[in-house]
Amino acid sequence: MTDTSLDFRVTHEDLARFIQATLAAVGANQASAQAVSRALVTASRMGTDSHGLRLLPHYVQALQGGRIKGAPNMVFQRRLAATGCLNADDGLGHLAGYTAMEHATAMADEVGIGAVAVGHSSHFGAAGCYALAAAERGYLGMAFCNSDPFVLLHDGAKPFHGTNPIAFAAPVAGESPYLLDMATSSIPWNRVQQFGAIGRQLPDQVAADAAGQVSRVPADIAALLPLGGSDFGFKGAGLGGMVEVLSSMLSGMQHGFRLLPMGGPDMATPRGVGHFFLAIKPDAFVDEGTFAQGLAAYLKDLRAQPASKNARVLAPGDREWRCQAQRDAQGVPLDVANQLAYAELAERHRITPLSRLD
Amino acid sequence: MTDTSLDFRVTHEDLARFIQATLAAVGANQASAQAVSRALVTASRMGTDSHGLRLLPHYVQALQGGRIKGAPNMVFQRRLAATGCLNADDGLGHLAGYTAMEHATAMADEVGIGAVAVGHSSHFGAAGCYALAAAERGYLGMAFCNSDPFVLLHDGAKPFHGTNPIAFAAPVAGESPYLLDMATSSIPWNRVQQFGAIGRQLPDQVAADAAGQVSRVPADIAALLPLGGSDFGFKGAGLGGMVEVLSSMLSGMQHGFRLLPMGGPDMATPRGVGHFFLAIKPDAFVDEGTFAQGLAAYLKDLRAQPASKNARVLAPGDREWRCQAQRDAQGVPLDVANQLAYAELAERHRITPLSRLD
Repeated sequence: MTDTSLDFRVTHEDLARFIQATLAAVGANQASAQAVSRALVTASRMGTDSHGLRLLPHYVQALQGGRIKGAPNMVFQRRLAATGCLNADDGLGHLAGYTAMEHATAMADEVGIGAVAVGHSSHFGAAGCYALAAAERGYLGMAFCNSDPFVLLHDGAKPFHGTNPIAFAAPVAGESPYLLDMATSSIPWNRVQQFGAIGRQLPDQVAADAAGQVSRVPADIAALLPLGGSDFGFKGAGLGGMVEVLSSMLSGMQHGFRLLPMGGPDMATPRGVGHFFLAIKPDAFVDEGTFAQGLAAYLKDLRAQPASKNARVLAPGDREWRCQAQRDAQGVPLDVANQLAYAELAERHRITPLSRLD
Repeated sequence: MTDTSLDFRVTHEDLARFIQATLAAVGANQASAQAVSRALVTASRMGTDSHGLRLLPHYVQALQGGRIKGAPNMVFQRRLAATGCLNADDGLGHLAGYTAMEHATAMADEVGIGAVAVGHSSHFGAAGCYALAAAERGYLGMAFCNSDPFVLLHDGAKPFHGTNPIAFAAPVAGESPYLLDMATSSIPWNRVQQFGAIGRQLPDQVAADAAGQVSRVPADIAALLPLGGSDFGFKGAGLGGMVEVLSSMLSGMQHGFRLLPMGGPDMATPRGVGHFFLAIKPDAFVDEGTFAQGLAAYLKDLRAQPASKNARVLAPGDREWRCQAQRDAQGVPLDVANQLAYAELAERHRITPLSRLD
């Protein structure tokens, strides 16, 4: 984001109001609109801008095109005491995600672990939102999702896996949760576009050209490398594969390679995205208090480690919660592209525009 | 390994016989000796030499030193329908691992998922062995383990995490299982030693000197980098942290940073290693056959992908099963160091030496 863009800031409450009103205007029911708003605002507050407010125009397009249903009939079936599946009926992935994690934590409360595979779903924003939803209730949460192909296999020449994210969150007594939310590629696809726009070279070992050769020139990029690059990408690709097995195979959906592209042009055909959610109850393994004490001791040791670069080492989530505190105080910034997109949505759907903070 | 070393090859049956006899000679009971032998032979057959037969002298030392009990009283407690904990009573981690995964699959059979946290354990060899044990019975298996510090945090200057492995296996109809077994560093510690011994530079972005600066000179290396290197090591470090939370905190053990070093010199004090195992029943989410069909379709698409380097792309496990077929036909090789170590064990414990294949 440029400096100018930081001048346009809004409260997250106003952002949530706008997102919900816009989605309602294109046919989303209240539960769907609230779930999307919760996920996008969560991501935007913590600085995960790739999965925050910028996605709203995309969801509007998908709802209007018919790919996604604004009033789905999602059906949960508990198949065994610790497991179930959710048919998301081509609704918004955010509603599917929060709903599935709610069932997962309810089962975990009863039997120690709960897992839900979700089929017939759609893009759900940041995987971390759903892991976080579990951690906020006192459970360890994990979330996985397949996605359309952008990432090479190790030694591969053509995109095969999506950026297939892994999210993991754990409750921390008296603090915000521990939160890891990572793609199994080194960078997201929109990083290539961002670097291209400002004429900057990519880091080494993160992307490749159409022949599968590593390249740092944004204009030449046809695929991302799996995490680990040319030498160790079998690890990133293996993790991407694990996400595929959990998200696609346990939900009975097609694997990511065969998914229609998120970006269209077809905005009418449901994509059948698959997710997988896991909730784990700490006290189902150790006595009450043991987990919290252990995690606090671990985080204390971790944060006391010396850094190599005059920086501080951080636990997963530390950067995000710091950003959230700052944005809660100063507002969530919109870059120029998002300012324009949101102004257009306001006009087209007759919604009170976002109120710019002074 | 040098060419010469390949001249000394043994059958895996003979290797198992030798391992069991040696462990029995230093006080391991039958269940413990069989578990270690199963794990080491599995790793050696599939070419995971870092976690195969070379570890036997280490376990002998730990049993003789008193750090590990050869006849432990391991106690499993099922705490809820899907969860339990195993107190490994400072026995061999391999017995703990196979025992825990057996309980996990039994619970998964009943309620869909089963998870077991193991405390008071010891080094268990390759994490993949236990994930594989689940897959061989038709379940998805996951295994995690903490370990003593070798790996920097992202931007860290001192080792904090162990190489904290993640293993994931899935049953494939009519084939050997899908098997991912990875450290959350790019390379294992003994790779540094191997490269040093042959005067070779390390790959870039895998290790650092005592100041936490990236270095490729084996003699200068004081720590490994997390998977992802200087730029993206927050992902490898985050995965290492996830392993820590599952293995240390859910088992009530100390986290890896505070573990006594595996290599000694103290071979008398139990280390209190923690593991975490998860078993997932595919039919607990989708109808019978759906999972197998989906995985077969995925693997077919994967293996048909074009490669960038005149190679073939591989699914996790493909390389290992190919190696296993070869070693089952031609024997498991011992390099010179292992030939000497095994000869010494044979002499010291009056065990019939390994029988060298022609």
